[in-house]
Amino acid sequence: MRTRRAVLTTLTALACLGTLPAAQQGPAPEEVVDRIVDECLRTYRTYFRLKSLCRAAPHRLSGSEGADRAIEWAREHMLEDGFQNVRLEPCTVTHWVRGGVEELVITAPEEMAGIELPILALGGSVATPPGGVEADLVMVRGFVELAELGDAVRDKVVLFNRPMDDRKVNTFEAYGEAVKHRVRGASEAARFGARAAIVRSVTTRRDDSPHTGALRYTQGIEAIPSAAVSTNGADLLAGMLRDGKQVRVRLKLSCRMLPPVESFNVVGELVGREKPEEIVVVGAHLDSWDVGEGAHDDGAGCVQVIETLRVLMDLGLRPRRTIRCVLFMNEENGLGGGRGYFQTHRAEMENHVFAIESDRGGFTPRGFTVAATEAARLEIEAMVAAMGRIGQLIVVPGGGGADIGPMGEAGVPLAGYLPDAQRYFDFHHSERDVLRAVHPRELSLGSAAIAALAWMVAEREEPLPRAQPSDSR
Amino acid sequence: MRTRRAVLTTLTALACLGTLPAAQQGPAPEEVVDRIVDECLRTYRTYFRLKSLCRAAPHRLSGSEGADRAIEWAREHMLEDGFQNVRLEPCTVTHWVRGGVEELVITAPEEMAGIELPILALGGSVATPPGGVEADLVMVRGFVELAELGDAVRDKVVLFNRPMDDRKVNTFEAYGEAVKHRVRGASEAARFGARAAIVRSVTTRRDDSPHTGALRYTQGIEAIPSAAVSTNGADLLAGMLRDGKQVRVRLKLSCRMLPPVESFNVVGELVGREKPEEIVVVGAHLDSWDVGEGAHDDGAGCVQVIETLRVLMDLGLRPRRTIRCVLFMNEENGLGGGRGYFQTHRAEMENHVFAIESDRGGFTPRGFTVAATEAARLEIEAMVAAMGRIGQLIVVPGGGGADIGPMGEAGVPLAGYLPDAQRYFDFHHSERDVLRAVHPRELSLGSAAIAALAWMVAEREEPLPRAQPSDSR
Repeated sequence: MRTRRAVLTTLTALACLGTLPAAQQGPAPEEVVDRIVDECLRTYRTYFRLKSLCRAAPHRLSGSEGADRAIEWAREHMLEDGFQNVRLEPCTVTHWVRGGVEELVITAPEEMAGIELPILALGGSVATPPGGVEADLVMVRGFVELAELGDAVRDKVVLFNRPMDDRKVNTFEAYGEAVKHRVRGASEAARFGARAAIVRSVTTRRDDSPHTGALRYTQGIEAIPSAAVSTNGADLLAGMLRDGKQVRVRLKLSCRMLPPVESFNVVGELVGREKPEEIVVVGAHLDSWDVGEGAHDDGAGCVQVIETLRVLMDLGLRPRRTIRCVLFMNEENGLGGGRGYFQTHRAEMENHVFAIESDRGGFTPRGFTVAATEAARLEIEAMVAAMGRIGQLIVVPGGGGADIGPMGEAGVPLAGYLPDAQRYFDFHHSERDVLRAVHPRELSLGSAAIAALAWMVAEREEPLPRAQPSDSR
Repeated sequence: MRTRRAVLTTLTALACLGTLPAAQQGPAPEEVVDRIVDECLRTYRTYFRLKSLCRAAPHRLSGSEGADRAIEWAREHMLEDGFQNVRLEPCTVTHWVRGGVEELVITAPEEMAGIELPILALGGSVATPPGGVEADLVMVRGFVELAELGDAVRDKVVLFNRPMDDRKVNTFEAYGEAVKHRVRGASEAARFGARAAIVRSVTTRRDDSPHTGALRYTQGIEAIPSAAVSTNGADLLAGMLRDGKQVRVRLKLSCRMLPPVESFNVVGELVGREKPEEIVVVGAHLDSWDVGEGAHDDGAGCVQVIETLRVLMDLGLRPRRTIRCVLFMNEENGLGGGRGYFQTHRAEMENHVFAIESDRGGFTPRGFTVAATEAARLEIEAMVAAMGRIGQLIVVPGGGGADIGPMGEAGVPLAGYLPDAQRYFDFHHSERDVLRAVHPRELSLGSAAIAALAWMVAEREEPLPRAQPSDSR
C-alpha cells in the first residue's frame, strides 16, 4: 500500500502543478486511439464516403462542373455529419480544359506509320495548331542530354524518356527525380527551338495508361504543346530510335487555358471546448485531374479528414481546441486554394497551432512527415508512439503538403500523413486512379491515424512549439 | 585527431578479441542490404517467377497433378538458377479431392426455394450421400451457442456465422478467432447430432467468393460433410433466420479422402564458404488450395525464398554458412512436408542454426515474427535495424511458420516474414488469390528483407543462441 499511496501523492502533486498529462484528465491517448480505430474499422465509413465522392464527382479539375459538384458534395456531407461553421471560402483558381482532341501518331518510318500511342495532354499545355505538329522525334533522358544536343532539337519533337528509378524504396523520391521533365520539359525543349515535348509517364508501371500532371512554362520562352505518353508507348518509340530509325510523329492537342475563375475551399469545424479560437487544420485537396476518379489523389485524403471530425464527434470526443477540416481547391494545377486559405486567414495564423495534410494516397499507414522545429517533432513522436495499436508508425522530416505549405512559412508546425508508397504511382494522375484501387481497411486505418494525431494535438494543454516565420526547417 | 585515433585503437582491440561485427570483415550489413534491394527492385524477378508458377501450376493441392507440376517447376527453376544440391526429398502427404459436385440450395421457404449459394467444400470433408443432405438450418455464432442449443440441432444443418472481427488491425488475430469454426465446427455440430455444417467464409470481405481451408474431424465423432459459404451467402441465410423464417437447405458434396501418397519437398542450396555443414533454412510451402492460383498463399513465399538464394548468388555474396531453400509440400492440409523434412534431417538438427518461413502473403514488409530465446531475438533485432533502407521493420514474438515448427521444438531459432496484413484475407484460400492480387514492388521488397536476414544470420561469426529443445518460447 505504501508504494501505491506514494504514487497517488505524486499524482496529486503533479495535478496541483497543472503539469499532468492529458491522460490523467481525460481518457489516456492509447484509449482514445483504441476507440478511434474500432470506430473507423467497424464502419469503414471512410471507404463508403469515398465511393460516394467517386460517383458524385469523379472528375474534379479546378474550374470544371465536376469541381462544382465536388464542392456541393463536400458541403452536404459536412452538414449531414453535423460539422459546425460549414462554409465555402472563395479562392481564385486556374481554369484549364483538355478539349476533345489528343492524338500522337507515328508518321514515319513507313512500316509503323499510323500507329497511335496513348497520351494525355499535360495540365496547362497550349494546344497544337488544328492540323497538329508533325516533326522528327528526338529522344533525351534529361536536361543534360538536351543541352548537349542543343540546336539539333530545333523544329523537332523532343521525347523526355526518363523512367522512375524502380530501386528507390521511397517512390516519392523517384517521382521527384523524374517529374521535373514533366514540369519543365516543354520550356527547356522550347529554349532550343523544339516544337513540342512528349514526356514518358511518371509511373512505376509499364502499361498503356498515360499519367498526366501539370507543366510550368518559363516566362519569356515560347509555350509549346506537351503531353505524357504511356510507358509502353515511350518504350516503343525509344526502341525504334535506338534501332537507328528516323521517327516522325504528329501531335494534336486541343487543350487550352481559360481565364482564372472563382471557386471555393470547403471548410467545416469541430469547435474546441476550451480554446475554440485555436485551430488544428486537417486538410486534403478536393480537386483532381480529369481522368480516373481521383480516388487516391486526393479523394482518399478528403474522406480521411472528413472522417477525422466525424469519428471524434460520434465518439463524443470534443477536444480542447477547434479541429478545422479544410478541403482545398486547385492543388493539382495552381494552388489557388492553399494560397487563398492563407490569405483569408492570415490574421489568425498565430492561432493556427498545427496543420496536417493527407495527399499521398489511401494506403496502409507508415507514419507522418513533419515540418516543424525539433522540439515540436519530438512531441509529435511521443504522440505517435501512443498509436502502437495502428502499427509501428514513424515520424520523419518532410513537407506537410502543398496546400498547407504557406502556413508552414508562417511558423505553423506541419505534418503530412505518410502511407506505404509502393503502389501510389501505379494510379497517380491516370485513368487507373479509381475506387477499386483503394482498399477499405488501408484507407480507414489511415483515417484513424490522422484522427488520433489531430485529437492529441488539439487536446494537449500547451500548443506545439512554433517556428519563427520562415525559420529554416 | 586524438578522438579518431582513440576510436581506431578501440576497433583494433575489438578486432584482436574477435568480437568485431561482420561489418569490419566483409561488406557492412547496410551495404549488403543496399545491393540486395537494388537487385530485387531492379529486376522484379520474384514477380516474374510468380507469374511463371501461377501459369505452370495454379492448383497445387497435395497429391494432385498440379502439385506434381509445381514440384517439377521448382526443381527446374532451382537448377536453372544454379542452386547446389538440388533434390526432391520424399514425404507422405494427405490426398483429398474436391470432386465435381458442390451445391448448397435453399429449399424452403418457398419464395426463396431454388436459390443456390456459393460454397466450397472444406478440405478433408466427407461427401454427402449422392442425393445430398436436406434439412432445416440452425444458425449459431460459435461453440457456446451451439452447446446451448444442444439437442435442438439434431438432424439439422448448422450454420456457423462468426464474422472476422474487422476491428483487429492484425487480421491474423481476427482469423485465429474465427477459423476454429471452420476447423472444428463439423465435429462440434456432429457431437449434437447435426447432419452437416456450413461455415461462414473466414475473410475480411463481403462478397460472393467462398474461402475454403482444412477441417479436422475429432476421433470418435461421426464425420459429417462441411463447406464454407460466401459471406454474402451467410448474410442472406442469417437475414432469413433473423426474420423468423424456417429455412431449409440441401447440401451436396462429392469430395473424398483418398489414401495418403508419396510426394516431395523441393530443396536447393547455396553452400556456405566456411561452415557448409551449418544450415540456415529459408522456407515456404509449395502446395496450395485447388482454387485461384495460390498466388499469395503461398506462391509468394516460394518465389521469395528462391529469390533469396538467386540474389545472393548473382551478387557474389556467398555466406559463411549454407542457406538451404526448402519448398514444403502439404502445409495446407496435413503438414506432411514439414514433418517429413524434420524426420529426414533429425540427425543434423544441431547444425540447423536458423529457419525463416514466408507464409503470410506477398505484401509490403513490416518485419519479422521471431520464436527464439530472448538473446537470439535481440540479435535478430540488431540485424533488422540494419534494414532501414527497406523501412522501419519490427521484430515481434510469434510463430515462424507451420512447416518449420518442428525445428523450433528442437531448439532452432525461427522467424516468420511479417508483411502488412490488411489485404491478405481478401484472397486467402479463394478464387481471388491470383497473380493480379500481388504487387510486384511489395512482393520484391519482401524478398529483399528475407534475403538480407538470411544473409546476416548465415554470415555472422557465431550461430544464434539456441533454445533447449522444447524450451518454453
